[in-house]
Amino acid sequence: MTAPHPRLAFAELRRLVADLPKFDDDAAAAARRRDVTLTKPPGALGRLEDIAVFIAGWQGRHPPRIDRPLAAVFAGNHGVVAQGVAAYPQAVTAQMVANFRAGGAAINQLCTTFGVGLKVYELALDVPTRDFTEAPALDEADCTGTAIFGMEAVEGGIDLLCLGEMGIGNTTAAAAVACALHGGDPAEWVGPGTGVDAAGLARKADAVRRGLRLHRDHLEDPLQVLRRLGGRELAAIAGAILAARLARVPVILDGYVVTAAAAVLEALQPGALDHCLAGHCSAEPAHRRLLAKLGKAPLIDLGMRLGEGSGAVLAYAAVKAAVDLHNGMATFAEAGVSGKG
Amino acid sequence: MTAPHPRLAFAELRRLVADLPKFDDDAAAAARRRDVTLTKPPGALGRLEDIAVFIAGWQGRHPPRIDRPLAAVFAGNHGVVAQGVAAYPQAVTAQMVANFRAGGAAINQLCTTFGVGLKVYELALDVPTRDFTEAPALDEADCTGTAIFGMEAVEGGIDLLCLGEMGIGNTTAAAAVACALHGGDPAEWVGPGTGVDAAGLARKADAVRRGLRLHRDHLEDPLQVLRRLGGRELAAIAGAILAARLARVPVILDGYVVTAAAAVLEALQPGALDHCLAGHCSAEPAHRRLLAKLGKAPLIDLGMRLGEGSGAVLAYAAVKAAVDLHNGMATFAEAGVSGKG
Repeated sequence: MTAPHPRLAFAELRRLVADLPKFDDDAAAAARRRDVTLTKPPGALGRLEDIAVFIAGWQGRHPPRIDRPLAAVFAGNHGVVAQGVAAYPQAVTAQMVANFRAGGAAINQLCTTFGVGLKVYELALDVPTRDFTEAPALDEADCTGTAIFGMEAVEGGIDLLCLGEMGIGNTTAAAAVACALHGGDPAEWVGPGTGVDAAGLARKADAVRRGLRLHRDHLEDPLQVLRRLGGRELAAIAGAILAARLARVPVILDGYVVTAAAAVLEALQPGALDHCLAGHCSAEPAHRRLLAKLGKAPLIDLGMRLGEGSGAVLAYAAVKAAVDLHNGMATFAEAGVSGKG
Repeated sequence: MTAPHPRLAFAELRRLVADLPKFDDDAAAAARRRDVTLTKPPGALGRLEDIAVFIAGWQGRHPPRIDRPLAAVFAGNHGVVAQGVAAYPQAVTAQMVANFRAGGAAINQLCTTFGVGLKVYELALDVPTRDFTEAPALDEADCTGTAIFGMEAVEGGIDLLCLGEMGIGNTTAAAAVACALHGGDPAEWVGPGTGVDAAGLARKADAVRRGLRLHRDHLEDPLQVLRRLGGRELAAIAGAILAARLARVPVILDGYVVTAAAAVLEALQPGALDHCLAGHCSAEPAHRRLLAKLGKAPLIDLGMRLGEGSGAVLAYAAVKAAVDLHNGMATFAEAGVSGKG
């Protein structure tokens, strides 16, 4: 990425988030009308029926279509790893980006299995954010510029966006963001991440506690939470979610880090995540808590805790199925099947 | 199907179920050894990791492979519909079979979306089983012959089997089978099925109660439960599950009816379902109860209640992903990614 313009400021993001496209009730109503004609008892496809209506309403068209799904994975590095919060060395972020580019990571396989495009964005990995226990992680221009960079992930033509991330230390940033936005004890918002031991977990909670104390006078503003406690991949993800909304592209969220980034938008503008599905519930314990705060019921709950967008792309399979069922099934009239007796 | 041979008897099924192939510990150990080398934190793919080991162990080979998955859907008709237990007329069974053959049903779309083969078997639809409130649904030869017919669904070369069913009235048969096998009040084992109202639900519970009373002296034997209270598609599904085990083909169960058929085998021979994954948990309330009795945790829980194998094939997406991840991801060594710090 190029250096952000020094005059980029949060005002730009606030302006965008204040005027978001709404759910298209006409497209959704058309989807509901078709649904009841399909050869199945009403409601028998459960949440898959709701998903088809959701995609139609947020795409603003009926029938809904998913022809160009994209997984966008953002990678960043975090100064807070100096606090001993991560199980892996910071070099793993760049190594995993190389693995993504070489096709060897979990997200590559999942995208191949389900026919999802994959774009990987590395965000100044050689310049980690500042350690949030000592200073704001990012300055306002860098945070804004990275969010706008993330907005560019929403290319013209894509019709569904799965979000993912990679960043050693970023579950600590996510915990700090979630705790700042939703309150409670820092210990309730941290978890083992990629696998820290009990001492590491205590260091994570302590780092979050100190970070919140240091920045306490600035945390009423969700964008200050994002720049002071978050990180570049969180900022980019928030930008991508926002851009998707503006482009009428439904989003599938991934795990704790993606959801924490998303939560910033919801705090900034209630309803800003209405076009987002919670793809899965991570094994990172605070993810379930955060999803509940956001009122999102996950589609998949298989104990995954990898990030990379892996939970989002696995959930995509159900979303794709929902749209294919809606569009491809025969109606009672077409199939000559009798209705209820 | 051809008429069953008059001398077919349960002894044949008892002989087969008494000597089942075991889980291949060597193949499973090889899968576990590979899993920890893959570029992810140990355990980070959650249940997907367990599934890859499960498929390897039950296929008896490493790497596990899913190249020819098949969904087998069995359709039958039920005399117990005379008791007013179904929301749709009996003719719908044959109409839906025609819909399957024409490609218009939910199962067709799901199989297309996920690349699963589909075979549909209609089981003497013009000769419904007898009403189990008045007589045994099937005689022993018919029940045995249908189970053996079901065994033939496991064609050579398939490497994963999803099971489904269609049969107006068959959630009443499933409830009777589940209640006979696991006890409790009939009202706890019935549900709305395709959508009966409260009066219909009361008729279902009453039919199950009368059926259990009529056959009470014969229900210690799970095969008597199957023939007296079940139906042809349940018998065929039990046979298919058994044949899959014998051929080392892992199985994905669908909803309440498939699981009730499966439960007959488990009652006959504990461990007979160890090669089966619970694909999903249906919205039919007693399905969750029955899965708990069988110790099976469903992969998907999206409020579906359609049957046809729809939940099994949706869950197949996660199973396929698990195998692809296991086989396709790079190892730490291959990717040059550092281990834990």
